[in-house]
Amino acid sequence: MTAQSETVLGETVQRKPGRGRAARRAERSGAASQNAHLRVPFITRNIAPYDLLGEDSLQKIEATADRILAEIGIEFRDDEETVRLFRAAGATVTEVSAGASNLRFEPGMIREILKTAPARFTQHARNPANSVEIGGDATVFAPSYGSPFVMDLDKGRRYGTITDFENLVKLGQSSPWLHHSGGTICEPTDVPVNKRHLDMVYAHMRYSDRAFLGSITAPERAEDSIEMCRILFGADFVDRNCVVMGNFNSTSPLVWDGVSTRGIRAYAAAGQGSVHLPFLLGGAVAPLTTAGAVAQCLAESMAGCALTQLVRPGAPAILASFLSSMSLRTGSPTFGTPEPALGSLVMGQLARRLNLPLRCAGNFSTSKLPDAQAMQQAMMSMMSAVQSGANYILHSAGFLDGLLSMSYEKFMLDADLCGALHAYMAGVAVNEDTLAFDALAENGPGEHLFGCAHTLRHYETSFWDSGLNDDTTFETWSEAGGEDAMTRANRAWKKTLAEYQAPPIDEGRDEALKDFMARRKASVDDAWY
Amino acid sequence: MTAQSETVLGETVQRKPGRGRAARRAERSGAASQNAHLRVPFITRNIAPYDLLGEDSLQKIEATADRILAEIGIEFRDDEETVRLFRAAGATVTEVSAGASNLRFEPGMIREILKTAPARFTQHARNPANSVEIGGDATVFAPSYGSPFVMDLDKGRRYGTITDFENLVKLGQSSPWLHHSGGTICEPTDVPVNKRHLDMVYAHMRYSDRAFLGSITAPERAEDSIEMCRILFGADFVDRNCVVMGNFNSTSPLVWDGVSTRGIRAYAAAGQGSVHLPFLLGGAVAPLTTAGAVAQCLAESMAGCALTQLVRPGAPAILASFLSSMSLRTGSPTFGTPEPALGSLVMGQLARRLNLPLRCAGNFSTSKLPDAQAMQQAMMSMMSAVQSGANYILHSAGFLDGLLSMSYEKFMLDADLCGALHAYMAGVAVNEDTLAFDALAENGPGEHLFGCAHTLRHYETSFWDSGLNDDTTFETWSEAGGEDAMTRANRAWKKTLAEYQAPPIDEGRDEALKDFMARRKASVDDAWY
Repeated sequence: MTAQSETVLGETVQRKPGRGRAARRAERSGAASQNAHLRVPFITRNIAPYDLLGEDSLQKIEATADRILAEIGIEFRDDEETVRLFRAAGATVTEVSAGASNLRFEPGMIREILKTAPARFTQHARNPANSVEIGGDATVFAPSYGSPFVMDLDKGRRYGTITDFENLVKLGQSSPWLHHSGGTICEPTDVPVNKRHLDMVYAHMRYSDRAFLGSITAPERAEDSIEMCRILFGADFVDRNCVVMGNFNSTSPLVWDGVSTRGIRAYAAAGQGSVHLPFLLGGAVAPLTTAGAVAQCLAESMAGCALTQLVRPGAPAILASFLSSMSLRTGSPTFGTPEPALGSLVMGQLARRLNLPLRCAGNFSTSKLPDAQAMQQAMMSMMSAVQSGANYILHSAGFLDGLLSMSYEKFMLDADLCGALHAYMAGVAVNEDTLAFDALAENGPGEHLFGCAHTLRHYETSFWDSGLNDDTTFETWSEAGGEDAMTRANRAWKKTLAEYQAPPIDEGRDEALKDFMARRKASVDDAWY
Repeated sequence: MTAQSETVLGETVQRKPGRGRAARRAERSGAASQNAHLRVPFITRNIAPYDLLGEDSLQKIEATADRILAEIGIEFRDDEETVRLFRAAGATVTEVSAGASNLRFEPGMIREILKTAPARFTQHARNPANSVEIGGDATVFAPSYGSPFVMDLDKGRRYGTITDFENLVKLGQSSPWLHHSGGTICEPTDVPVNKRHLDMVYAHMRYSDRAFLGSITAPERAEDSIEMCRILFGADFVDRNCVVMGNFNSTSPLVWDGVSTRGIRAYAAAGQGSVHLPFLLGGAVAPLTTAGAVAQCLAESMAGCALTQLVRPGAPAILASFLSSMSLRTGSPTFGTPEPALGSLVMGQLARRLNLPLRCAGNFSTSKLPDAQAMQQAMMSMMSAVQSGANYILHSAGFLDGLLSMSYEKFMLDADLCGALHAYMAGVAVNEDTLAFDALAENGPGEHLFGCAHTLRHYETSFWDSGLNDDTTFETWSEAGGEDAMTRANRAWKKTLAEYQAPPIDEGRDEALKDFMARRKASVDDAWY
């Protein structure tokens, strides 16, 4: 056997020069070079989206969204400037209570306003190689967002801390299968509520060199997030480019409150991105039926997106949906169920017709452990996100416990799944080489293809190779301890954190960021609610 | 609060008369009446299939399959009658060794022969309410097939026995989310190889009243299976209707051996169904590239299907694919990976163009435990089966350990997932009621929909309610013991077996079956290989 040969299934096959056993063994460890050919700063989808509904059904949903906007209206609270902007654009304004106005929009008016919103845009990362595109055939995976608790197999469930937050940013940065550092990856509950946004934004800037989300919990925190970006990227660059986004929730049904709209205006005025998300629990704040929930989602999210264009035409805005079902047994939200998955597919169709980028779904689950339930539910939800053609998939890693907990182990399992989805979204190439007629003809019926030229040429890149799943025989697996997937994931996050190295950062900017944070923190007393 | 009201999320809502708390509580146990509105003998899909490839790519794959059949040919071994039938139909026959002939088919010839095969047919169950349709928009779920081992959390992995086989038939019969009893649900290794087919067929007939698969391991065992059906259903009924099917494997690449083709001929001659399955491990017996593997699969499976039409035009034949990837680390097959999932979607498109029913994919996994890996992989595979529009999905429940083991716990997890897929395949209804404009208009912005008429009308049927997943709060779950999904599944199969009741059977026919088996068993010595 020569240095250029290798044993595969007991057969000796030729290997290309310079790739000996040692290199292969390193590759097999599932570490640095795993599936290297699939690594990209963001995914360019090579699969058609899954078009669930026909033209007639889509038109009915759109017409219902238009009727909601025209006949029921959206209530805007505690933000006179937003009401003024929409009134100037032609909305019919009715004051319904102190600080609250019902706004109605003629059919087509919101769509007309949205025409200046970009169908696709770049969110710049401080490492230019990690900048992502959002929209069109580009898909971006970001970690889960907003859990007050964290959990792992060693310490169970507890409130998240800034140390957890930093750990999870580091785990995200270390995965080649996530593209974006996310936002409130967990709540750092050991930091005062009115100051934690500074630490969160800094953690994303310091421990990751990818794009991230800024704060949205108060307008001044949104402004702080953007100001820190000006320090990191330079004010002029920030004015001309999207470097940060805010993820804003409507107050369903059919309300946008002032904290959200003021934040949306802050991001838009700075030319930064915003996600416009109705969280629709069917039967509580939306109809139980998917068609109705999707129509409402479209109406609410379009109204939020439109606001950005009134503030600054061309500001990036992302249509979004977060559909949840309800447990008949407990009345609480459930995740990873079939109906929201179908709704996400429909949202994909609607977003494409509107020519706007879409955020939807993610690796959702109501399980309290990273177990069979967790990944069954996660897959139901995540496949719908990927197949809907969603462009920005928040909640791609770590989501457990109905979003109340960020799980260290599920983070690793989900990130590995995100890798598999890179292979899935690469699609099926059909050409003379991949059709492989010559490979079959080479030896003919009954002869295996282990050593044929076609197999050697494609061997290293044909199949997704998971870094976490165990594909060995029962005997091998059993002798190695017979571990389940969550135990492997537990070891994996510890190993990843132990090996983590922070990306380099300009010392002057780092000092300036720390100085800004110190001044902002000193300027107000701590608040804990 | 009246007897017709119920608390949902702390809100009192009206409930329809005659459905008090007790009835609801029974329903919530996940037992008999769980998701009753979704129960059907087979699924009629209400979602469009996922069309992955465009016309040009599909034509290239079809042309490659035609070239394989015309220029490389298929080798048929040890079955002169099959060679005679194909020669008479126009094939070019070249003897390649003793008993083996290479057959080549002019482009279009196989497709022409297939025109008499039904696009859709009924497989009758002994309980007519459980008869299934296979083809078109009908989908049938059947348990996993062919594992030599069984495993459960109590006793681990061991060789399957006839008791395991009967247990698993009972578990299948007890699930409303499976439609078909399957075939070799596990190998009953404690029964002689040449006699176990009798016990297996009898177990399906006695402990289930659903349709099932007969034996294929030898032509005389195929004949025994059909003869037992004649006893159960009546010979005349069997001659006029499909009551049993055989699942036949080609010997890839591009070979059909005589044991398979003689069996195929036996089923077809009796007017019974057959599945024509290439098991394609890319890089071993097929090209590593998906396009090539699918083209080969199409060629091999079409050739098998065509044989049935030469024997008896109109006999049911199912196109099939079983695509597997290879672990770069071990060279062994892997399951639940992205590339075979994409291949299954393409096979769905090809089957529709050929107007033949399709079997493909299932709940595949290489995990050795019913854990996170198991369900992540299973979902990757199963979603492709469902979305491809596959009509007969074998391996829908229990598949673990790369098909070497049938898992009691995964059987339960998979069957519950099959339930969720009933809801998924019901699709999104879009009409005035489901668009729910009036429900939103009733109270307007900011008001929840708990008690509105629309919510009450749809409350019990809107969302899939899993019988195994835990959707309670962390606190409730934790106080109840904090079990993972596999532990719940373990309890579920034991409870199901404890409560199992055999469906009634005509005593005379039961005696006749036992008598037939006894005579057949007495007629030959035991053989153990």
